[in-house]
Amino acid sequence: MTASSNLTRELETLWLTDIPVTAAMGVRIASYDGATLCVRAPLEPNHNPHGTAFAGSLYSLCVLTGWGSVWLALRSRGIEALLVAADSTIRYRRAVGEELVCKCTVDASALEAALAEFATNGKARLMLACTIDAGDERAVTFAAQYAIHAQPTH
Amino acid sequence: MTASSNLTRELETLWLTDIPVTAAMGVRIASYDGATLCVRAPLEPNHNPHGTAFAGSLYSLCVLTGWGSVWLALRSRGIEALLVAADSTIRYRRAVGEELVCKCTVDASALEAALAEFATNGKARLMLACTIDAGDERAVTFAAQYAIHAQPTH
Repeated sequence: MTASSNLTRELETLWLTDIPVTAAMGVRIASYDGATLCVRAPLEPNHNPHGTAFAGSLYSLCVLTGWGSVWLALRSRGIEALLVAADSTIRYRRAVGEELVCKCTVDASALEAALAEFATNGKARLMLACTIDAGDERAVTFAAQYAIHAQPTH
Repeated sequence: MTASSNLTRELETLWLTDIPVTAAMGVRIASYDGATLCVRAPLEPNHNPHGTAFAGSLYSLCVLTGWGSVWLALRSRGIEALLVAADSTIRYRRAVGEELVCKCTVDASALEAALAEFATNGKARLMLACTIDAGDERAVTFAAQYAIHAQPTH
């Protein structure tokens, strides 16, 4: 078992325990290689009246995957911080009629800049992009800005 | 019982039956006056690890309220059409630590333009804005473009 698999297990447990909607959606972490996080959810609990994926479920999977990517990037460096989604944009290009699979890759240079800002100011912002494909085609593109804040001290 | 209350009941049943996530979120239609649709969901099934509303639940409530507003505007005019969210942007200004209440008002002139386009081309696009407040302050602003398509004939 690697440190990375311990962290992904901790992240999945955090979601399923502390965000009830993720349990209803059947969210599971599929893989994490240190840069790209892949998160999936079955279609059945996430369908819309047309039998394809509900726009809200596609968005939730993206905002979670982005949040998880930042969380993993920070925790793997020993940093515990408060992460909050600030602004985001989603574009639905085509319907998803299969398992929802979302991918997010943290840009290394953007992460380093955010980490430097966080070390100096105790807060930073980081832009992330996520995607969901249907078959071999891009179905959803998502971009969000996450705010990183130092945890309040107790 | 008015035609409007029959339609809002039909809309709520459609959501709870055909979009499982809305049932998990506890979504209910609070009111509809022919222009403004108000939709609510309790905090408990929609919280995040900080005890405030999950970003994905806030988004889902907005995209549903927008969709429902178009559906009601069309159905109250006897029009059945296929409605799909295309692009959307959401901005989280502050945390929501109470029941989630989303409001959407369809702009009358934008609706008339979309209805005219739909009558001519069998398809149209309509921009909508939704808001969620926390106490007396604006917590979430959401804007989305919905595509309206004629139903396939059988």
